[in-house]
Amino acid sequence: MNKDNKKAKASIIIIGNEILSGRTQDENVIFLSKWLNDLGVRVEEARVIEDKEEAIVNCINEVRKKFKYVFTTGGIGPTHDDITSRSIAKAFNVPYGYNKEAYKTLEKYYKPGEFNDGRKKMAKMPDTASLIDNPSSGAPGFIVENVYCLPGVPSILKSMVNVLKNRISGGKKILSKTISACTVESEIAKPLEEIQNKFVNVEIGSYPFFRLGKVGVSIVIRSTESDQIEDCAKQIQSFIQQKKIQIIERE
Amino acid sequence: MNKDNKKAKASIIIIGNEILSGRTQDENVIFLSKWLNDLGVRVEEARVIEDKEEAIVNCINEVRKKFKYVFTTGGIGPTHDDITSRSIAKAFNVPYGYNKEAYKTLEKYYKPGEFNDGRKKMAKMPDTASLIDNPSSGAPGFIVENVYCLPGVPSILKSMVNVLKNRISGGKKILSKTISACTVESEIAKPLEEIQNKFVNVEIGSYPFFRLGKVGVSIVIRSTESDQIEDCAKQIQSFIQQKKIQIIERE
Repeated sequence: MNKDNKKAKASIIIIGNEILSGRTQDENVIFLSKWLNDLGVRVEEARVIEDKEEAIVNCINEVRKKFKYVFTTGGIGPTHDDITSRSIAKAFNVPYGYNKEAYKTLEKYYKPGEFNDGRKKMAKMPDTASLIDNPSSGAPGFIVENVYCLPGVPSILKSMVNVLKNRISGGKKILSKTISACTVESEIAKPLEEIQNKFVNVEIGSYPFFRLGKVGVSIVIRSTESDQIEDCAKQIQSFIQQKKIQIIERE
Repeated sequence: MNKDNKKAKASIIIIGNEILSGRTQDENVIFLSKWLNDLGVRVEEARVIEDKEEAIVNCINEVRKKFKYVFTTGGIGPTHDDITSRSIAKAFNVPYGYNKEAYKTLEKYYKPGEFNDGRKKMAKMPDTASLIDNPSSGAPGFIVENVYCLPGVPSILKSMVNVLKNRISGGKKILSKTISACTVESEIAKPLEEIQNKFVNVEIGSYPFFRLGKVGVSIVIRSTESDQIEDCAKQIQSFIQQKKIQIIERE
């Protein structure tokens, strides 16, 4: 990874008891990770935490100092268990109240007489927040310094990230190439390690899979440097051929 | 939550760059969370961290002091990027080397002549580890104090947890009831909050959903006390009827 990429690191914070109870399958980590990696931002960790003020405040105050970007999802809706906005205000020690712009947006979004207290709550934010437009369902997300707060519902979240692109300054895009081979990990562990040791700017991951009754290994080569990925891939393909292992697919 | 449940808290640590790059959808948090909740263990957080020694050591040393149980998944295979065992040894400051029992198990598992260096590596563990039997693919997981290390491949992980049941002493099982209603969150936010305020031993979660073109909200009531769940559910059903909202399904 080059110098730019070292700086452009992110943490993703999923806020929601429904994930920790096993009720709901999280889909936001994989979506945000892909999106950030494509923007040259390396996601170094993700956390799932409870809808509890103390948990949110402590977590945010830890990660916002460690990472260039923090993305939260969840807890910005109208119900009592939506406490992200209030907790972020507390973490930054700024007042929490109506954001005029968000209030106007929501007032306009709902029919006259339907802008009730629950909906008004979604306009309450930390005092220093700037808004993230929501093209799906009205209620905006918000940004405080390096913390980007998005909703938990995957479809709404996905509709909102595009407007953020220009605010993220990542490093070089992190590229990857996958070589899938009809083998088991232990057969290729040694040559793979030797190749990894030769390429300091490349990360080689090895992932066993079981697909349609077939056992195989996907070897994933990641780097910001496409020529190094190619060099590395050639060396991997070469030892795979020497060992007479069948390559299943190449991406 | 009763006193027992306060004590029986867990953290799940997913170790693997493939999750943070957005390549792979994690399936282990939801599986382990469900399993632990059923055993009366509350999962308070989950983290996804990189295959980096420093990240693993720091994370483990933080969470093992905070939680009764820590479960890790991933990084115990035969390749160079499998560094969980070595890193756990470092976190506990104990030697890392062959576990005799694991070595014997693996030697027996593979055909004569096939127990190569990669496979032998899977017998290397922290000195103080006790084994978790692997009925699917030979290589055992292991336990050091309160840290339980499991493989990352979901199918193998699932086959291994049953033997652990007797080692986990949870509190009362955390029960839940879901009421799904044909409404939007902001319509029910106020009465829901009022009911939540009346039930201190019950957690009410509100989750919007979009299913088959229908908009709805699932209200999830969680507690260790079934009678309180029922009382709470009755009050929720009552205000839903008053508001003439249609109940979609009840679990």
